Amino acid sequence: MDSLPTEIFNPLELDSFVGESHAVLDFLSDYYKDVESYPVQSQVIPGYLKKGCSDYAPDSPEHLEFILDDVRKNIIPGLTHWQSPNFFGYFQANASTAGFLGEMLCTGLNVVGFNWISSPATTELEIVVMDWMGQMLKLPQAFLFSGNGGGVIHGSTCEAILCTLAAARDKALKDIGEDKITKLVVYGSDQTHSALQKAAKLVGISPSNFRPIATSSSADFALSPNDVRMTMEQDLANGLFPLFLCATIGTTATGAVDPLMGLGLVARDYGVWLHVDAAYAGSACICPEFRPYLDGVELCDSISMNPHKWFLTNMDCCCLWLKDTRSLIESLSTNPEFLKNKASESNDVVDFKDWQIALSRRFRSIKLWVVIRRYGVANLRNHVRKDVELAKHFEGLLATDCRFEVVVPRKFALVGFHLKSNPSIYNDDVSKLNRKLLEAVNASGRAFMTHAVVEGTYMLRCAIGTTMTEERHIEGLWKLIQEKADLLALPNDD
Amino acid sequence: MDSLPTEIFNPLELDSFVGESHAVLDFLSDYYKDVESYPVQSQVIPGYLKKGCSDYAPDSPEHLEFILDDVRKNIIPGLTHWQSPNFFGYFQANASTAGFLGEMLCTGLNVVGFNWISSPATTELEIVVMDWMGQMLKLPQAFLFSGNGGGVIHGSTCEAILCTLAAARDKALKDIGEDKITKLVVYGSDQTHSALQKAAKLVGISPSNFRPIATSSSADFALSPNDVRMTMEQDLANGLFPLFLCATIGTTATGAVDPLMGLGLVARDYGVWLHVDAAYAGSACICPEFRPYLDGVELCDSISMNPHKWFLTNMDCCCLWLKDTRSLIESLSTNPEFLKNKASESNDVVDFKDWQIALSRRFRSIKLWVVIRRYGVANLRNHVRKDVELAKHFEGLLATDCRFEVVVPRKFALVGFHLKSNPSIYNDDVSKLNRKLLEAVNASGRAFMTHAVVEGTYMLRCAIGTTMTEERHIEGLWKLIQEKADLLALPNDD
Ligand SMILES: Cc1ncc(COP(=O)(O)O)c(C=O)c1O
Ligand SMILES: Cc1ncc(COP(=O)(O)O)c(C=O)c1O
Repeated sequence: MDSLPTEIFNPLELDSFVGESHAVLDFLSDYYKDVESYPVQSQVIPGYLKKGCSDYAPDSPEHLEFILDDVRKNIIPGLTHWQSPNFFGYFQANASTAGFLGEMLCTGLNVVGFNWISSPATTELEIVVMDWMGQMLKLPQAFLFSGNGGGVIHGSTCEAILCTLAAARDKALKDIGEDKITKLVVYGSDQTHSALQKAAKLVGISPSNFRPIATSSSADFALSPNDVRMTMEQDLANGLFPLFLCATIGTTATGAVDPLMGLGLVARDYGVWLHVDAAYAGSACICPEFRPYLDGVELCDSISMNPHKWFLTNMDCCCLWLKDTRSLIESLSTNPEFLKNKASESNDVVDFKDWQIALSRRFRSIKLWVVIRRYGVANLRNHVRKDVELAKHFEGLLATDCRFEVVVPRKFALVGFHLKSNPSIYNDDVSKLNRKLLEAVNASGRAFMTHAVVEGTYMLRCAIGTTMTEERHIEGLWKLIQEKADLLALPNDD
Repeated sequence: MDSLPTEIFNPLELDSFVGESHAVLDFLSDYYKDVESYPVQSQVIPGYLKKGCSDYAPDSPEHLEFILDDVRKNIIPGLTHWQSPNFFGYFQANASTAGFLGEMLCTGLNVVGFNWISSPATTELEIVVMDWMGQMLKLPQAFLFSGNGGGVIHGSTCEAILCTLAAARDKALKDIGEDKITKLVVYGSDQTHSALQKAAKLVGISPSNFRPIATSSSADFALSPNDVRMTMEQDLANGLFPLFLCATIGTTATGAVDPLMGLGLVARDYGVWLHVDAAYAGSACICPEFRPYLDGVELCDSISMNPHKWFLTNMDCCCLWLKDTRSLIESLSTNPEFLKNKASESNDVVDFKDWQIALSRRFRSIKLWVVIRRYGVANLRNHVRKDVELAKHFEGLLATDCRFEVVVPRKFALVGFHLKSNPSIYNDDVSKLNRKLLEAVNASGRAFMTHAVVEGTYMLRCAIGTTMTEERHIEGLWKLIQEKADLLALPNDD
């Protein structure tokens, strides 16, 4: 062993593990303290970082302070600050102390629970937590382990949809024959997240067999069961096979809710797999007052939601429940010799590798478990309610200024609004005007929102609910919006 | 706003963020200190955790100490300790201080870099780090951003293979027509990781079109280019279309290395996409003495490796490079209105959502960046070399006891060995005997290994290289193995 370097390199030496971690905690604590003062949207230009970086990895170790200094000087300015209380873009990604602690445990223990035997507690805790979450959402027993269904934690909704779609596909192809893969059809609405389209393409559904069925403002952008039925009839008449329908609770553009009951009956009639994407609004459904949006879930085959959005769980975490876990496992399981073990062969245990794409898996359940226990269901409900109240407050402010209008009725904490067209004040058409308004707001650095277009109408999306957003930030946002709207009203000639 | 609870719930209050994080750090520090004393493989029985857990999520918050106490009492005993220096199973999952610090930054900042605009630094740092890693591996320029290729960080090799396979599939189907999906064929060896088979199934390749080509001990379990060629010829003769070939550098069972040069020429002749899975041994290839195993990579289309195995990067992290990034993007991109932005439209930026399955993505590059900078390339090389030296040492110990033999020649830090059959000492056949040996070792709690079967031969896999494994652990393992072998030699009558 003489070839070993004399000075032992010890990457888990305990004093430096604790000491350097303290330094990063102080760094993060400063970050949270200061984040409100940073421009919310990064103002860098493409390629900014490359200039400040070496083209090559360093040969020798660098001090942590030096690295953190670089984060401060070169990384922070390039971040759009999702944890800023003035971040109202996309959907929020809630950080929290409990989420962070849970992630520390996951990362520190660094066990890999691909099957039961590889680290039993990771599987067993996931089973416990998924049943807890399912009960908080009042999912029917059939979705819970305690009711012969079950759930699994994925990294993203895209992955959850991809896996359920593969399960549905393989189940169908077993009946109709593998060569019919080109005839399978997937349904959603024109408001369904692009995750569905992507997943469909990934599992080999022909892009021409993807049906984003039109919705309209008159129905609050909800998918009409009748339209689905008609589309399926047409596909059947053309020799195609309806396979999979995705309903959304809380669409990305407008927070719309598809009617699960009606869609469930259609799905049943046509024998298609019905998945519910509640990525954003699923978190709200732990409150009794929002739970009615999930009525009809008993008619669905699977449902997923992202605790990494509105549930105080740092990235990443997506909960997926299914009734027919067998189909999922049949589609995703592999049984290589090197993983064979008595526990799996006994069929007494769950091997989560057969419920997801990857073999490797992080101990995400401990994160969600810490969040739920550290905060408790009552606080988690109030967390959602607070954001909904803030959204109502913002709506109230909009109502005080007749230049603005809310474009779609708000259900959760997402407000879609815009400046109304008004030729006597503005030269621009309404889309251009609102695009300018959004750019002005975001360029100010004082807040950040994103946009959507529904039925040709451009609108600003104000997604309320970062962990640190308070009433004063809503007031500040409103002042900023009014200020920028005032400036747009000045004569301009482009 | 009167409906807000009077006592404000503040999940990112700074004092408790820092204070509670310190408590978790102390917990983890104690864990690392004690981990050597825990039984490496968990000794719990299926269902153990449920008994100690409430069936319902708590309504009220719980104290952190109480939760950590529960981790200590109920979770730790259910873990198989991947960070124990006596863990020699599967492939190691290296935790390190720098990996942990990087993950803290990722989790704490909690930004979501799905496209450039959503947080520019996340994309730009990934570009920098992927080029660094590519240079450390001496990948041809064509795989680097600086050479018009590029790389992306995925969560797992399974995901990386799935995405490259989808890209290859869509590129092929554009030429031969979508309905030919049922004719596409995917090739690997019988040693290729099950990730390939699973990815092939997921993207809609017929299971009957998956070709795990046989290898043999006479060729050290490497895939023979000639055999691949013959198989492809046969498939062509049967009207099928060879699509994708996966070569492995460091197979899971034995650490075998497929010949990239020879396979590259075959891939070129048949126009198939050649992917290199270097999940485990890719890390070793940063050392000049191991880099020859990658010779021929210039003939390949894509290559992936997992820093979360042997590269001191806590889970999860998989680097994937491609020459033809266009095909990947064409296959995976979606362009929903709510994500449209000037930067993306300018085509001046990278939008990593189009290089992976999920929309959401964690800031994994900062983790890998901290690992590389905090340790430096020289230490990272020595880290690999140390483990290889330990593996050589273990081989040396095996050679001192004529009851044992090494089953496959060692290339990296994985040693495959077994007790030789010897009717004068043992009643059992060689497989049963070695299964008993492995069970006895693992049941002792003093070390943990896993197994493989090659050409019908059962062997024990000793994968050396957890972060804390030192020479004394190898000595201890050897003593344990000998002790258990002695006990097996006693007359037994089952
Ligand atoms: C309704 C909906 N579904 C799916 C997604 C995608 O989620 P993920 O990034 O976890 O795949 C989003 C993200 O915003 C969403 O709003
Ligand atoms: C050679 C090889 N490929 C792929 C994998 C799977 O990696 P992942 O879990 O990142 O998908 C492994 C895991 O051990 C492996 O050894």
